[in-house]
Amino acid sequence: MKIELICTGSELLAGKINTNAACIGSRLSAMGLELSLVTDVGDRKQDLLQEFKRAFERSDIIITTGGLGPTFDDITVETAAECLNLELYADEKILKLIKEHFLKHAAASIPKINERQANIISGAKILENRFGTAPGQMLHFEFETGGKKCRKTLFLLPGPPVEMKPMFESSVEPFLRNCSTGIRKNVVLHVFGIAESSVEEMIKPVMKEAGFGDSKSVEFGILASKSIIDIKFSVSGTDELIVDETINNLKFRFGNVLKDNIFGCGADTLASVAGRLLLENKKTVSFAESCTAGMAAAAITDVPGSSLYFKSSVIAYSNESKMKLLGVKEETLARFGAVSGETAKEMAEGIFKLSDSDYALSATGIAGPGGGTAEKPVGLVYIGFADEKKTESFKFNFYGIRKDVREKTVNAALDLLRRKLIAKRS
Amino acid sequence: MKIELICTGSELLAGKINTNAACIGSRLSAMGLELSLVTDVGDRKQDLLQEFKRAFERSDIIITTGGLGPTFDDITVETAAECLNLELYADEKILKLIKEHFLKHAAASIPKINERQANIISGAKILENRFGTAPGQMLHFEFETGGKKCRKTLFLLPGPPVEMKPMFESSVEPFLRNCSTGIRKNVVLHVFGIAESSVEEMIKPVMKEAGFGDSKSVEFGILASKSIIDIKFSVSGTDELIVDETINNLKFRFGNVLKDNIFGCGADTLASVAGRLLLENKKTVSFAESCTAGMAAAAITDVPGSSLYFKSSVIAYSNESKMKLLGVKEETLARFGAVSGETAKEMAEGIFKLSDSDYALSATGIAGPGGGTAEKPVGLVYIGFADEKKTESFKFNFYGIRKDVREKTVNAALDLLRRKLIAKRS
Repeated sequence: MKIELICTGSELLAGKINTNAACIGSRLSAMGLELSLVTDVGDRKQDLLQEFKRAFERSDIIITTGGLGPTFDDITVETAAECLNLELYADEKILKLIKEHFLKHAAASIPKINERQANIISGAKILENRFGTAPGQMLHFEFETGGKKCRKTLFLLPGPPVEMKPMFESSVEPFLRNCSTGIRKNVVLHVFGIAESSVEEMIKPVMKEAGFGDSKSVEFGILASKSIIDIKFSVSGTDELIVDETINNLKFRFGNVLKDNIFGCGADTLASVAGRLLLENKKTVSFAESCTAGMAAAAITDVPGSSLYFKSSVIAYSNESKMKLLGVKEETLARFGAVSGETAKEMAEGIFKLSDSDYALSATGIAGPGGGTAEKPVGLVYIGFADEKKTESFKFNFYGIRKDVREKTVNAALDLLRRKLIAKRS
Repeated sequence: MKIELICTGSELLAGKINTNAACIGSRLSAMGLELSLVTDVGDRKQDLLQEFKRAFERSDIIITTGGLGPTFDDITVETAAECLNLELYADEKILKLIKEHFLKHAAASIPKINERQANIISGAKILENRFGTAPGQMLHFEFETGGKKCRKTLFLLPGPPVEMKPMFESSVEPFLRNCSTGIRKNVVLHVFGIAESSVEEMIKPVMKEAGFGDSKSVEFGILASKSIIDIKFSVSGTDELIVDETINNLKFRFGNVLKDNIFGCGADTLASVAGRLLLENKKTVSFAESCTAGMAAAAITDVPGSSLYFKSSVIAYSNESKMKLLGVKEETLARFGAVSGETAKEMAEGIFKLSDSDYALSATGIAGPGGGTAEKPVGLVYIGFADEKKTESFKFNFYGIRKDVREKTVNAALDLLRRKLIAKRS
């Protein structure tokens, strides 16, 4: 069963990040399914028609996102209909819903152009949009593939992720669950603290024994991003017990090799894992951030329920605020500089006292692009750690642009916290 | 001239966000060029071969990202060579560089698998990788398109954005600049404070007069994300003066209609525009963040040089920290709740005093998924604002998931700051 995704919108070709592809890819992956291809195509009818034709030929299930909006450049519905030689009609019920939505949210009359969103392809099932005015559509159709007519399914989903995701969950997922034959499960293990190529050398014996390269039932992949290495493997078969046993065995053996460097799997993030460990240990954490300026706090509170282990933080970007808000000594700043192990330690101690948290982390560094010197280059970061027993600092040399340095700093700080909590437990 | 992008990596089909496509799309857009298509394809040789063939047929310039790494699933080089019937050779100079890199950064011997990265396609030019071990490659070749042989160019770029971007800038951009014929310029205007469909209704007369729908030399698009509406237009022609005049005229007329709701263009963000206005006015800002927990500070410091107008912030997630760090009254929290205009005001006043900033902004709200009630639903957010003259609060009802509510809050706070600075100026 081939599933492919077409994301429409000229903005995707001109710099807009496509988060829908990532969202749908990860949902399918969690179901043991996979996308065979993702195509981003602009809002020109000829381009979209061509991609539709090609997708209808080669795939069984075609999902599109975008182009259901009210404006002139939203052409997905009419183009799909044209490609399949089907009529459009204005659905009265949807028209009524759109009008009600406008009365409720905008307290004004419906803009004429929003009426376009009620256009439905003849024969399509309407998919309710709980977070916007554009309905989705599901259509079963026949299309000639390799000389014979095949039954296919097309899903038209809206572009805004907040509308697309719930519709995908309530309409596409149940359909796919009914379609799938055989069992295939995907696993992703997240590793921190080892380089990508070293991870491969370390796990290669395990992969080989599992049939890597020979067996079609086990596939592997390795990927690095912001110092996090993902080991991905998928196991397929007809007997769920055997598939699960293979997965558990692989997890166990990767764990033996990589130990605590594996920090989680699937949807786990360094923030969610650190959060879970804090919760289990009934501990709290606070940050004193300079170069990351709130990113560590934002990461840890990205997890719902984080108020149970995160109370407060201070962002001290300037030297004055490091002294005034965190009690860093003027002498320390003068002697060692704002980017130093000593300052990182005093920052951590400062927020530790101020916040009444069990653990305190600090980060001070040179994120770039400016501010680097031969002695203290861009990418130099100190992370401080304080608890009731002691205060430490750790030195890092990250490379990359400003964004990378800041994100790697957050990851390193969260991983440090994670390892402290694990060490405490054992 | 058709330019297309193929991003390789099974992770892109399984949930990983493709930032390379966005980066390359925006760089091309800034040059007045555009991608005709983006395809994300997995690490399977057959799939990649098929996409290569199709891209070589239909496009003039083919750019790939990813698959140059050291591990077994990095197959871009060998697959491109196979598709074009060309040999591979191990480049001695690159091999030496890779060995040196490992000695310098890892202080260990080179892992055997990293040697694969020295494989170069016969006839290709090596593109230096300043931030990693995998070199890029540029290859001119002939390929049959519609029955006749055409000259094409292939760029193989690494997957990690930190390596890809500088290589794109130093190798692909100069090449493209030499290739382009005619003039085409893209403009994106960013709007905040009006709904997408209202924006279209407001600007339609201007678009029509500019030849919207009739003229091929002016194209328009509208896109909404996180309450930000982008109006995109591209103007093409042979005379640069006329192209520029058309652009300036459109900008002027859109400005007349949308006024201060247009906050910037191109690479401007709400954070960079607010930052620029602070700098011009020699003013500083601080935040007291609850529901956004550092995201506003992270956004404003995303801009290099922001230390000139941003000094410090406090993240007060719990009620205790709102009282202790910001001086919010216990009585206020008890009577109105943490999510209220009154608390937002006291938070803003608290950070205003503590930080010695000229402006203070606060945010307190219910980001969800939990914590909502009938009276105070998920998405309810209060933003506080304080300066030397007065303190105000503003109420918002955002919809969307946790991430959306938090990001929309940050955008609303930055826009509020921007409007205050504009009002001050006039």
